[in-house]
Amino acid sequence: MRASYIQEPIQWASEFRFFVPVQVRFSDTDMYGHLNNTYNFSYFEFARIEYFKHIGLMNDWLNPEGHTIPVVADLQCDYVKQVFFDEKLRIHVKSASVGTSSVDIHYHATNEKGDTLFTGRGTIVQISKKTGKGFPWSEEEKSLFLAN
Amino acid sequence: MRASYIQEPIQWASEFRFFVPVQVRFSDTDMYGHLNNTYNFSYFEFARIEYFKHIGLMNDWLNPEGHTIPVVADLQCDYVKQVFFDEKLRIHVKSASVGTSSVDIHYHATNEKGDTLFTGRGTIVQISKKTGKGFPWSEEEKSLFLAN
Amino acid sequence: MRASYIQEPIQWASEFRFFVPVQVRFSDTDMYGHLNNTYNFSYFEFARIEYFKHIGLMNDWLNPEGHTIPVVADLQCDYVKQVFFDEKLRIHVKSASVGTSSVDIHYHATNEKGDTLFTGRGTIVQISKKTGKGFPWSEEEKSLFLAN
Amino acid sequence: MRASYIQEPIQWASEFRFFVPVQVRFSDTDMYGHLNNTYNFSYFEFARIEYFKHIGLMNDWLNPEGHTIPVVADLQCDYVKQVFFDEKLRIHVKSASVGTSSVDIHYHATNEKGDTLFTGRGTIVQISKKTGKGFPWSEEEKSLFLAN
Repeated sequence: MRASYIQEPIQWASEFRFFVPVQVRFSDTDMYGHLNNTYNFSYFEFARIEYFKHIGLMNDWLNPEGHTIPVVADLQCDYVKQVFFDEKLRIHVKSASVGTSSVDIHYHATNEKGDTLFTGRGTIVQISKKTGKGFPWSEEEKSLFLAN
Repeated sequence: MRASYIQEPIQWASEFRFFVPVQVRFSDTDMYGHLNNTYNFSYFEFARIEYFKHIGLMNDWLNPEGHTIPVVADLQCDYVKQVFFDEKLRIHVKSASVGTSSVDIHYHATNEKGDTLFTGRGTIVQISKKTGKGFPWSEEEKSLFLAN
Repeated sequence: MRASYIQEPIQWASEFRFFVPVQVRFSDTDMYGHLNNTYNFSYFEFARIEYFKHIGLMNDWLNPEGHTIPVVADLQCDYVKQVFFDEKLRIHVKSASVGTSSVDIHYHATNEKGDTLFTGRGTIVQISKKTGKGFPWSEEEKSLFLAN
Repeated sequence: MRASYIQEPIQWASEFRFFVPVQVRFSDTDMYGHLNNTYNFSYFEFARIEYFKHIGLMNDWLNPEGHTIPVVADLQCDYVKQVFFDEKLRIHVKSASVGTSSVDIHYHATNEKGDTLFTGRGTIVQISKKTGKGFPWSEEEKSLFLAN
């Protein structure tokens, strides 16, 4: 785990309190015989949305009458070990830091033995559907991120 | 070409007047080293929508103010030859028959030598956004399908 | 359920003894707001492979030293109800009939209430890696299909 | 263009000499109505491989008898503008720097007006199939990267 967003690997890994299980499907592999590098980001998206549901934020973002929507500002993935068909992964998710209308989400993918397979991070911004600009978190939302 | 929807293969193949080029991407392959069987349907969708744009029907279906939307009722694919990374395909599309509010779309995928790689068909139904029920084609729309 | 491969819907549905759960991911949706029609086939593939693992056939097909490989000969899907983000599906799988070196696999996707969302079928052929031709099932393999 | 790997945006953008056209397909969108954030990385992969083919490196990496294979070490994407169905993109690719057995690839996605839609980068490492370790570029390969 040499990514720039990880200062202390052991501490970093210990701070995740949420994960989703993901099983590598056959259609996620490519002709090199392993997980194609684009699917890691699908797994991140799936895990992130489950995390947002867990916190209680997703309802508003799915509501056609809602005022805000989450937007991905950036995403990155560091590939540590090759991943193969049928492996059972855990995609761990946490909020590493919270800004006015953004949140920095970190990801840690492990196998059943606990080995790190890949790590990642990315900023999500809450924007107003009307203005397209950043829409500030409430204090309650901030505390939800920081507690999970 | 042994599919039940193909009576006379040579005549059937000769009736296509529209095609789109598609190049097989690395991420479309799987660990068996060939095009994963689920991507054929992505190619069909891409080709079908280009065909609808070509005919002039897609604008209305993409318009948020439009009253109708096309819905896939069924889809099938017959796999004739293995397809590999980087092959340049042509996905041919035609309307095989037109109903009151539906159209039976046929597909013929060939390689650069003209070999048949896979064939397919599927019914598209135009539905009303309001009622969710089939919405009849105009006479003009019917003639657009039959001429292309 | 009006598909041609379904004679008696209630009996047909009652004959499935195996299913896998699948949750519709955000990245599986499209701009019409529902499950994109190409993902149904990914779900079929995932369910089919889990079924083959359950029966005990997948090991050989994944073994680089193995002599045979399963190939998809055709696939079809009938779309009965719209499917939306986050729905929890069950993809039921059964062997409808077994040939010399092929098997006709049927699929039945239901939601949590048991409603039919989509159905499908497709022929899988076991081929020899060396000859590329169909490779006959053993009697044991045939009985595994028919019992599951 | 605020990404950390871009010092001088105008100069950075001017250094790309290769691009591939990509059209946003319907199945690449999601229920928020725009390009799903995971497909940007498929576009990067497609563009990168076309770039490797253009340089002349891909043949060896696709050859089952070849000794080396390219591996993705990390990937990142910065999302600048929303991207919609049917947009015609150009994915520009360049080698930003070359190491002993690695290369840092940069990406710049623009629309038909030349607007920046998203940017990205990622390190590719050439590894030996036998040892799984980094396999040094030849001087010729290094010069191919630096010239393109």
